[in-house]
Amino acid sequence: MIVVMKHTATPVEVDEVVAQVNADGYTPHISQGETHMIIGLVGESPTPLREDNYSSMNGVEKVVRVSSPYKLTGRDMHPDNTYVPLNGSSVGKAKVVVIAGPCSVESREQIIEIACAVKEMGATALRGGAFKPRTSPYSFQGFGEKGLQWLAEAREMTGLPIVTEVMDPALVPMVASYADVLQIGARNMQNFVLLNEVGKSKQTVLLKRGMANTMEDLLMSAEYVMAQGNGKVMLCERGIRTFEKYTRNTFDINAVPVLKHRSHLPVIADPSHAVGYSEYVHSIALASVAAGADGLIVEVHPTPAKAASDGRQSLDYAGFKKMMDAVQRVAEAVGRTA
Amino acid sequence: MIVVMKHTATPVEVDEVVAQVNADGYTPHISQGETHMIIGLVGESPTPLREDNYSSMNGVEKVVRVSSPYKLTGRDMHPDNTYVPLNGSSVGKAKVVVIAGPCSVESREQIIEIACAVKEMGATALRGGAFKPRTSPYSFQGFGEKGLQWLAEAREMTGLPIVTEVMDPALVPMVASYADVLQIGARNMQNFVLLNEVGKSKQTVLLKRGMANTMEDLLMSAEYVMAQGNGKVMLCERGIRTFEKYTRNTFDINAVPVLKHRSHLPVIADPSHAVGYSEYVHSIALASVAAGADGLIVEVHPTPAKAASDGRQSLDYAGFKKMMDAVQRVAEAVGRTA
Amino acid sequence: MIVVMKHTATPVEVDEVVAQVNADGYTPHISQGETHMIIGLVGESPTPLREDNYSSMNGVEKVVRVSSPYKLTGRDMHPDNTYVPLNGSSVGKAKVVVIAGPCSVESREQIIEIACAVKEMGATALRGGAFKPRTSPYSFQGFGEKGLQWLAEAREMTGLPIVTEVMDPALVPMVASYADVLQIGARNMQNFVLLNEVGKSKQTVLLKRGMANTMEDLLMSAEYVMAQGNGKVMLCERGIRTFEKYTRNTFDINAVPVLKHRSHLPVIADPSHAVGYSEYVHSIALASVAAGADGLIVEVHPTPAKAASDGRQSLDYAGFKKMMDAVQRVAEAVGRTA
Amino acid sequence: MIVVMKHTATPVEVDEVVAQVNADGYTPHISQGETHMIIGLVGESPTPLREDNYSSMNGVEKVVRVSSPYKLTGRDMHPDNTYVPLNGSSVGKAKVVVIAGPCSVESREQIIEIACAVKEMGATALRGGAFKPRTSPYSFQGFGEKGLQWLAEAREMTGLPIVTEVMDPALVPMVASYADVLQIGARNMQNFVLLNEVGKSKQTVLLKRGMANTMEDLLMSAEYVMAQGNGKVMLCERGIRTFEKYTRNTFDINAVPVLKHRSHLPVIADPSHAVGYSEYVHSIALASVAAGADGLIVEVHPTPAKAASDGRQSLDYAGFKKMMDAVQRVAEAVGRTA
Repeated sequence: MIVVMKHTATPVEVDEVVAQVNADGYTPHISQGETHMIIGLVGESPTPLREDNYSSMNGVEKVVRVSSPYKLTGRDMHPDNTYVPLNGSSVGKAKVVVIAGPCSVESREQIIEIACAVKEMGATALRGGAFKPRTSPYSFQGFGEKGLQWLAEAREMTGLPIVTEVMDPALVPMVASYADVLQIGARNMQNFVLLNEVGKSKQTVLLKRGMANTMEDLLMSAEYVMAQGNGKVMLCERGIRTFEKYTRNTFDINAVPVLKHRSHLPVIADPSHAVGYSEYVHSIALASVAAGADGLIVEVHPTPAKAASDGRQSLDYAGFKKMMDAVQRVAEAVGRTA
Repeated sequence: MIVVMKHTATPVEVDEVVAQVNADGYTPHISQGETHMIIGLVGESPTPLREDNYSSMNGVEKVVRVSSPYKLTGRDMHPDNTYVPLNGSSVGKAKVVVIAGPCSVESREQIIEIACAVKEMGATALRGGAFKPRTSPYSFQGFGEKGLQWLAEAREMTGLPIVTEVMDPALVPMVASYADVLQIGARNMQNFVLLNEVGKSKQTVLLKRGMANTMEDLLMSAEYVMAQGNGKVMLCERGIRTFEKYTRNTFDINAVPVLKHRSHLPVIADPSHAVGYSEYVHSIALASVAAGADGLIVEVHPTPAKAASDGRQSLDYAGFKKMMDAVQRVAEAVGRTA
Repeated sequence: MIVVMKHTATPVEVDEVVAQVNADGYTPHISQGETHMIIGLVGESPTPLREDNYSSMNGVEKVVRVSSPYKLTGRDMHPDNTYVPLNGSSVGKAKVVVIAGPCSVESREQIIEIACAVKEMGATALRGGAFKPRTSPYSFQGFGEKGLQWLAEAREMTGLPIVTEVMDPALVPMVASYADVLQIGARNMQNFVLLNEVGKSKQTVLLKRGMANTMEDLLMSAEYVMAQGNGKVMLCERGIRTFEKYTRNTFDINAVPVLKHRSHLPVIADPSHAVGYSEYVHSIALASVAAGADGLIVEVHPTPAKAASDGRQSLDYAGFKKMMDAVQRVAEAVGRTA
Repeated sequence: MIVVMKHTATPVEVDEVVAQVNADGYTPHISQGETHMIIGLVGESPTPLREDNYSSMNGVEKVVRVSSPYKLTGRDMHPDNTYVPLNGSSVGKAKVVVIAGPCSVESREQIIEIACAVKEMGATALRGGAFKPRTSPYSFQGFGEKGLQWLAEAREMTGLPIVTEVMDPALVPMVASYADVLQIGARNMQNFVLLNEVGKSKQTVLLKRGMANTMEDLLMSAEYVMAQGNGKVMLCERGIRTFEKYTRNTFDINAVPVLKHRSHLPVIADPSHAVGYSEYVHSIALASVAAGADGLIVEVHPTPAKAASDGRQSLDYAGFKKMMDAVQRVAEAVGRTA
């Protein structure tokens, strides 16, 4: 950590900062620049450094953090890629996995039919929501545990592992008893109680980036899960909120290579939420693979106009088939498989 | 709801939309504009309208919602202001209430001392966090129930009601047994499980706007609480995330008059999180009152540089006293009291 | 256009709106919904409709525009792709063009050397700034006309057409006398005086999207150029401003398919500004091609650490060569060439 | 400037950075932290430091700037407030000035009538656009020089100085021959050619913050004007672009105290563009004054629904009168006058 003093800082103010550095167990290293004095904190100490406290001291201009705040999710201490097992594949290796299915589980028949269809077309896993976070309390909220049972039946028939969202910390064990992958939705990315619970569950986690969260926030939330001893985390970029109105979200494609660079965890892209309109999902899926995503999670529905939720962004079967074919070609173009 | 057809829409596509409108129990009302056909949905029906489903149909350009989606929080059905009782005041009436205290409860002595100090300087209620949502799992997470007990002691000594955050749906009854006002933090604004629980608790709720949430989202989250039969909701603007780097958040001062206009619920401003630096909190507090806020929630700490969290944005006692005096003058200038 | 009346609108307020519609030469078409009256404006009139004026009337809740405001750049009136000639290619057809070169022209030798290098590696055109928009008045502002002369020499030696920025409306004819393509930078996207001048010049234009501009704004700025009779416009996505701090901008990859869908103009992607760090440019370039971009504009410098500007985002020759090879493979995977 | 080396940086990479520091004429000051080496650049040199070049070097993690990039607009070298003369007032002193008038000059009669009205109600200066930057080429673009002549007539009759926008660098002398204050609009905030011209003109400048520009960008654009020897600059906050849809812009009220803190220049607030709807302008005007703004610029029109532009955000006379009365009370509450 580096403390930059104001150019108007008095010797007394400098002494107070130096005393605080010593009190925290670090060695202050002072450089006098042209206009500003800089105090480096050198050495190791059991006292964690709190930027806020130094930045609140008199005479301090700003505090600059040097090392990254994510220890378990970052590459510094863990340079090699983490591979997360999914249906015989290792997410993060050559094969680009595709998780497909409806936004919501709508009935036993619906989810089984879709599971069979997407398996046939090459999906690696099945998505489907039984607990739905909805902006309005009057919107369909999902079938709950019954939906999970239907998902389990669909798994039994197809062999596709299940990816499904969990919203309530108290229900993590129950959801985990059905699901292969616990999805944390964008709205819950900083629901730290929930992150701790999925961390404790030891189940594979798909962690979606929140709409207003930086990549650093995302890595810190993954850190919550890993700090509970659960290393099977997949990061998911699904678009952030901006001023643009022609799309539902702004997909941060930059996040794909940047997260891969900073973290050893696999990165999944969600082109459906990324753009919000089915006619563009194909292009964004291909872009994600070209940018280096380890997998995709895509909404598929046989009749999008009848979907209980998110119909506007769901691919129909023909669209999904077309996307899968193109994903394969692009994956090969960048030295991967699909 | 209005369905705008594409200028290339075929008669068959129009017929399908019309059939859907009839199936949903509404009367289609067709207008042929210069380039686009417009289909208005007229009448009442038990079937709720889902924009997504119409917008997924062939030939549809876009769907425009006409009525607002918040029924309980909006002014349409509830034109008169709601007043929320707090320590003998009615939040929403003339008196601008001030909720003050530390970011975190750090010790029994600390919270009692601060409670006495802010009461002396005119605060209406005491804030203090016992459960802290922190970006990093390694940061101080609060004292939990012990912190709540200390808050209760502080209340006993000062008479100040307690405003404190609850993060875990399972702990709502426990937190509610100590707290007078349950705070929902920005990161949990769309934690719908938690919203339902605080709705059921019937305790007064302070609902903070999320960093990436529109005012409409905020009103919809308040709708979750009210839909559970709990009408004692205070909306809180605390800043949103933007590209600006000189401040911690961008305070959306526009939200104060806009929320007051659209909703009957009281609006509280949080100048501390709004700007993130103590030297600017005074100005933002006054701006909030001038814009029509019904109250303020402000972080106060006797020695900000020693605070366990958020020291950079905490006022010290002298700063708080100065703010309170100025708040009173500005409140009077806009026809209120403080 | 559709005018939605407030549910509290009085008959007098409705009459005033109806009178205004008639005065503007349109036919009012009234639908009474469950809660709101809706007035559609039907027919044709020489009076252009101004949303603001209707939305300022008493009793009006909101005004909804139906037809898109861009007539010349949109697909409605011009469904077929526009192809812009560039060095024997037609931008918008199968071949993905690559415009490459340094951020700034730094010397005669530098630009000639780079031109030869990028031509050798397959570039279609040469970029290089002679007039540089810089946030600071103390930063290098470019060599001006001398830089243009050096660019012209580089063109003579390599045959590569020149893409270069123009900032001053008064200098458009001079810059156009050297350049093959006039670039309008992000900061000037709504410099309407400049847009009119490049429109009048009839030279090909590369129009970059501004940092805070919607796609609609971009299409409206292109409309300025086309309204002057200049149809040779290429739209360029280069990233928008968001809260994310790990990258210089947030590349709006969604814009590639959405702009292609809404407009007949070719779409170029700028992966260098999109992400701002050379190590990620490769991934973003491939993503752009996969998403359907018609071309790329990329910053290349033999020794980025010595560049006069934008060194941090410039590819060196090895990086550019690697990118070109991969672009070719991805282009083929999506049915194009490079 | 501080260069933070990667924790994997090799001795050779460190040597290269050190050599570059020496080559640039600074003294490298090395601190070895727990994980990262930090190289401070100490001393003075005629060579300006370019962050980009250091950050492009091998082994460099990041580069941290220490001193602020704005020399003339910042308080470091100019701690005392600058007061800009306007109609006998000194903007920046106790009196809160109010610049009022229509968005566009629509006719000789209109501007004279409004000038008389706003003067009567206490305005300090008259605003009115003769050159209008419009998103659409088909919207009303202003009356040009004729509009300026009408403004001059209005000045003659009322004594109110004229604030009007200039868009074309070539027209700065002409516009300056009529106007007392040259306004640079949000879309031109980084039109550096224009900034240089208004700098050379020596006329007072009202510089509006761009929709996607940070406060630092704004100060750097003011630096352009001041670097030409023109110190009569007023900074203007008018709202930035965010995801919020209930208002036209998001007014960054934080900018008022932050700009006052960092710069010695006066700060004007534009509540009309800030929020975009006339019914909220009153609240935002008061908030601005409470936050410490030195003045307001407000759109006023006798019949907003008939305005040629921006009718939706224009106050009518009654609204302006009410605002002026309230501004006076709030100004006094914060120790100022109006």
